[in-house]
Amino acid sequence: MRRVAIIGTGHGRFGVRDDATVQELAFEAYREAVGEAGIDPKEIAASWIAAVPEYHKQRSLAGVVQEYLGLNPRPTWLTEAACASGSAALHSAWTAVAAGLYDLALVVGCQKMSELETPEILALMGRVGDVQWESVFGSTFPGYYALFARRHMERYGTTREQLAAVAVKNHDYGVLNEKAMFRKPASLEKVLASAPVADPLRVFDCCANADGAACLLLASEERARTLGAEVVWLDGLGAASAPMSVLRRDDLCSLPSAVEAGRQAYAMAGIGPEQIQVAAVHDCFTIAEIIALEDLAFCAPGEGGPLSESGGTRIGGRIPVNVDGGLKAKGHPIGATGVSMAVEIVRQLRGACGARQVEGAGLGLTHNVGGIGQYCFVNVFRRES
Amino acid sequence: MRRVAIIGTGHGRFGVRDDATVQELAFEAYREAVGEAGIDPKEIAASWIAAVPEYHKQRSLAGVVQEYLGLNPRPTWLTEAACASGSAALHSAWTAVAAGLYDLALVVGCQKMSELETPEILALMGRVGDVQWESVFGSTFPGYYALFARRHMERYGTTREQLAAVAVKNHDYGVLNEKAMFRKPASLEKVLASAPVADPLRVFDCCANADGAACLLLASEERARTLGAEVVWLDGLGAASAPMSVLRRDDLCSLPSAVEAGRQAYAMAGIGPEQIQVAAVHDCFTIAEIIALEDLAFCAPGEGGPLSESGGTRIGGRIPVNVDGGLKAKGHPIGATGVSMAVEIVRQLRGACGARQVEGAGLGLTHNVGGIGQYCFVNVFRRES
Repeated sequence: MRRVAIIGTGHGRFGVRDDATVQELAFEAYREAVGEAGIDPKEIAASWIAAVPEYHKQRSLAGVVQEYLGLNPRPTWLTEAACASGSAALHSAWTAVAAGLYDLALVVGCQKMSELETPEILALMGRVGDVQWESVFGSTFPGYYALFARRHMERYGTTREQLAAVAVKNHDYGVLNEKAMFRKPASLEKVLASAPVADPLRVFDCCANADGAACLLLASEERARTLGAEVVWLDGLGAASAPMSVLRRDDLCSLPSAVEAGRQAYAMAGIGPEQIQVAAVHDCFTIAEIIALEDLAFCAPGEGGPLSESGGTRIGGRIPVNVDGGLKAKGHPIGATGVSMAVEIVRQLRGACGARQVEGAGLGLTHNVGGIGQYCFVNVFRRES
Repeated sequence: MRRVAIIGTGHGRFGVRDDATVQELAFEAYREAVGEAGIDPKEIAASWIAAVPEYHKQRSLAGVVQEYLGLNPRPTWLTEAACASGSAALHSAWTAVAAGLYDLALVVGCQKMSELETPEILALMGRVGDVQWESVFGSTFPGYYALFARRHMERYGTTREQLAAVAVKNHDYGVLNEKAMFRKPASLEKVLASAPVADPLRVFDCCANADGAACLLLASEERARTLGAEVVWLDGLGAASAPMSVLRRDDLCSLPSAVEAGRQAYAMAGIGPEQIQVAAVHDCFTIAEIIALEDLAFCAPGEGGPLSESGGTRIGGRIPVNVDGGLKAKGHPIGATGVSMAVEIVRQLRGACGARQVEGAGLGLTHNVGGIGQYCFVNVFRRES
């Protein structure tokens, strides 16, 4: 297999985007990536569109995006793995370049959720859980993660304040990210006093539905070397699944797919978790970030809460996590999120993140969960040293 | 890149399947494929699920299917390209095996359309066309293909009887396919007298929404050689896109994505169209099969109608096409169709098709269109001679 580089990144503004169709959101990110890479779009051999289609009036999203980007007759299709769709698309595009099938590939994550009302979205999302045995009884995503949080609190003594520390940190970094949905700090008091959603989770423990797009250009080593710039490689890929029914989960304090995907990614990159210098993890709820720290072996099981509360996941701490604001403050346009994570990590490794830069980061990681962990993708990125 | 073999095929019954959930439909095909290949399911390294998710109450289809098949923690995700989703998934799985990322991969196409009523399906399908400029004015798929048919009749003199000959042939072969939805012959008179849908297309010019699943197991050359049986290779892949808006089409008598995908597949396999001995083409409407014959260069532009009427696409004719009944008689569970086509061609090359066998076929082709041609995939399969 050939080594694969990320040669271009693009990221639109996340939030409520009444100003653009989904294909226009895609173009906003695409234009930035093509400009950054300095390539001729005619070089793009194929494109992978990441989205969860049911939120849009327009279906056949890959077709409409490909046409709008002017990339016909190049092949395209959509890749979906719930909230991990972006990473699934990246995995597939990486594979095609690694195989030697294509020299230059495009990944676009795009999602416009604001076409639906929140109750419709909640109902749809519930059906991303098991319909036959669970969602018929009214299960929703906040409910699932509230179960995880409650169990984590009981087993490890994780506290409400520790959950809130995740939200406070991510909102602090959202302020520094001009593409983020929420750019206001949230104090510990504000988080703790916010409206209850599903006990123990409150409004500020939950990420927000959003519109937005992000984009990556992948190239073979040979093509990447000709661009002259410092190269960022995608050197470790992990991908795994787990039962989507919580009825069949042995443990509510860990996502088995995340543990497995992390193990694969570290092994493929030939590194250990202690070498990662910056990470973007799937904080759909505050408890999810705490569990991710443990599943990725950034700390031992049960230590995710104290690590978060101590500032260990801030810039300057043991492992800076979600310094772009995470899903929590940046917003979560579900199909775009995995691509957005990769954009942030590539830019961190290039030293291009301004006020939220993790100085000297050479190894970064993304952790992207679909549903309640039925999918997980972990990727390790490396700056050529 | 490594050569990739199809080592197992599975195919459930197509039709209205009130007896099974979508994951149960998937299992029906999966069990057959695993049995046929004679492998241990633990060898399956990853699976690609092909479906158009919006027809199901259950979302996150890849997750629910993977769990039901007992394949956790292997990675999985969904691939969607409208009615060409099955071929898009096969393309991606082929790539991963060719790359050397996985030695054994699973493709499952599954769809349960009967959960929705026909008017809902028609409205959803209209949105597989361009929403911004076309479906808002009421465009539907029969309407699009009626436009193509009318233009073909005007330019080439294609007749109503020639369109009907496609339906008559495909129903004749549907009788011989125990997995087909419709197993009754349809006379020329019956087709011509059937109810109008969108002039000039009538009910018997249109394929039917269906439930069903089909399955493929792919393996590296090294693994395939150890199985002892005669090997069928996927040696030529073509994939292309085209504008999905008919407003931007120069020609309504041809799908440019099909011409391009066919060209790629023939070149990669190192053959010409005259060498293909059996083909499964995308006959969502009778006119679509006629256009496919021309786009794939089985005949010259304008000769698809006469070729069909003369019996040239029946067994014993110049190029046997859709001898499993095609979408027309077999039914069209949209995510499963591309996989079903590949199953039929692999079985033809193995001489396993009984009464509808094309004797001695060593080279076969599938042609799978998404939407109104915004996607097209053409694949060439070869029996090891």
